Amino acid sequence: MNTSGKAVTCWAAIAWKKISPLSIEEVQVEPPKAGEVHIKMISSGICGSDDHVLKGTFPVKFPLIPGHEGAGIVESIGDKVSSVKPGDKVLTLIIPQCRECNSCLHCKGNFCEKQDVLPSSGLMLDGTSRFTCKGKSIYHSFRVSTFTEYSVVPEIAVAKIDDAAPLDKVCLISCGVPTGYGAAVQSAKVTPGSTCVIFGLGGVGSAIVMGCKASGASRIIGVDINEKKFSQARALGVTDCLNPRKLKKSVQEVVMEMMGVGVDFAFEAVGLVDTMTAAWESCNKSYGVCLIVGLASPESQLSLEAAKIITGKTLKGVCLGASVVCCCSEA
Amino acid sequence: MNTSGKAVTCWAAIAWKKISPLSIEEVQVEPPKAGEVHIKMISSGICGSDDHVLKGTFPVKFPLIPGHEGAGIVESIGDKVSSVKPGDKVLTLIIPQCRECNSCLHCKGNFCEKQDVLPSSGLMLDGTSRFTCKGKSIYHSFRVSTFTEYSVVPEIAVAKIDDAAPLDKVCLISCGVPTGYGAAVQSAKVTPGSTCVIFGLGGVGSAIVMGCKASGASRIIGVDINEKKFSQARALGVTDCLNPRKLKKSVQEVVMEMMGVGVDFAFEAVGLVDTMTAAWESCNKSYGVCLIVGLASPESQLSLEAAKIITGKTLKGVCLGASVVCCCSEA
Repeated sequence: MNTSGKAVTCWAAIAWKKISPLSIEEVQVEPPKAGEVHIKMISSGICGSDDHVLKGTFPVKFPLIPGHEGAGIVESIGDKVSSVKPGDKVLTLIIPQCRECNSCLHCKGNFCEKQDVLPSSGLMLDGTSRFTCKGKSIYHSFRVSTFTEYSVVPEIAVAKIDDAAPLDKVCLISCGVPTGYGAAVQSAKVTPGSTCVIFGLGGVGSAIVMGCKASGASRIIGVDINEKKFSQARALGVTDCLNPRKLKKSVQEVVMEMMGVGVDFAFEAVGLVDTMTAAWESCNKSYGVCLIVGLASPESQLSLEAAKIITGKTLKGVCLGASVVCCCSEA
Repeated sequence: MNTSGKAVTCWAAIAWKKISPLSIEEVQVEPPKAGEVHIKMISSGICGSDDHVLKGTFPVKFPLIPGHEGAGIVESIGDKVSSVKPGDKVLTLIIPQCRECNSCLHCKGNFCEKQDVLPSSGLMLDGTSRFTCKGKSIYHSFRVSTFTEYSVVPEIAVAKIDDAAPLDKVCLISCGVPTGYGAAVQSAKVTPGSTCVIFGLGGVGSAIVMGCKASGASRIIGVDINEKKFSQARALGVTDCLNPRKLKKSVQEVVMEMMGVGVDFAFEAVGLVDTMTAAWESCNKSYGVCLIVGLASPESQLSLEAAKIITGKTLKGVCLGASVVCCCSEA
């Protein structure tokens, strides 16, 4: 059917409030305005950040249609959209790339000023929503709601992908894979022969493991409280698995004992200050690099022993794996 | 006189306890043991860290002979010393370089494991002191006491300098100058055209300013509560001076307003968590780099908003300006 310029009625999962089951509802999706893209969603991942949203640990506005890790086909485009056309296969981006703001124009920045994560308005760039349900306006999730048959997304939050890409799988490349792989390869720049520890072996953590392995790390310690993840983690490259709940000491003490001098690179892919602290303290004090990949709740504070910072450690935040469209030689 | 192998009696400044005036006392300095160097001190700087020691905000053992930023002439050497000989002009190093430990052998590390700062034993590497006064053993300051006519220092904490160096001035190159200049040039790698803010315009802060200027920074904001430092700071390259006590908002808010998007590089050269927080929050959220150069008191905690870390900022500690003897291409 030709949906161009018309509202579409379809099914979507709505979170009417935090900490409650998703509800499958019939929703109306307005046509895209200028600079927006109407997408028929084919698949969506479930990211840890969606879980934070639904559990209420990350503040958003309700009711909303969750999800941001999507793959789909362009259904129609609004005025002035030039990078994609109907029929194109696309991924959605939780952090857009306007290519005009200070962050996009800087070779080492990728946190576009048009993002809607920190803080989250739940609305499109013009301050309105494209979703209604039972006559009520429904908020967007980071401007890229994907738990819906149809979504409207800013053009700057859409990436065209190859026509041959399998849409039932590539949604993971929309967020989890580049977030983790890029954190290891592009942000930390893991070095051959180095030692790494990864806190959290979910989708992002697994991609970090792959990035560390591809970079030639000699030892990769995986940490998770869910031991069911360990066999998969080992298959991807983890050399040692630790379950903090089964240790008699803190993870960081155990990592220190295992390595003698702390790891070269530590990655936090959970979003909790306790695991961030453990990652920081697992690093070599003289040259260790601690990458914060997990999204913490806004009120949480990471507390570091101030005197010990000068010994030479680095703490670095990274979103979407430091992926940028514009890559100059400096990046 | 030939002092080789003999104890020397000389004058030194002793801090018998914290928060009390230094006392000029006659002390006995034992001859150097194997791997140690006996130095006739010619000049010594007074570093902010010495001030922290004397005020009791940084834990050391008393009584001690303070000072670590020294220049002198080798008086005699212990067994197995090969890098210097009597008569050589030398500087003392607060962080030694044993060239054997994990940190020294790593191209990006310089916090030698034989350091005596964190924690501070106040004793030489063999666990004993070379100083006595009135029959009482006196502690060393970071193994490089310099507020004395004669000192004994590990060979690994001594750097030979040019015979033409003016010993009344070069003591500052022992610590303050490389700490600040290196933080800007070697650790932050300040880029041409970039924007910088420096918290603390003392000796270290001034050297940071020089490093930023030499790196081609386009704007250099200097922050200090002592406005007497401003004219000197401007002469070195500071473009804007701020006195936090005269601002109606926090420094970081003012810096944000001045720059629009936060600075590329922020440096903390005070050693207080409040100024560390201000430096961190002055950085651009997407690509800003915050260098911690000041030595904080061991019980102090730097608290960062955890959720905002992932936007892309970097926090990096640096001591002695990341100076290393071994510099491979990676460093």
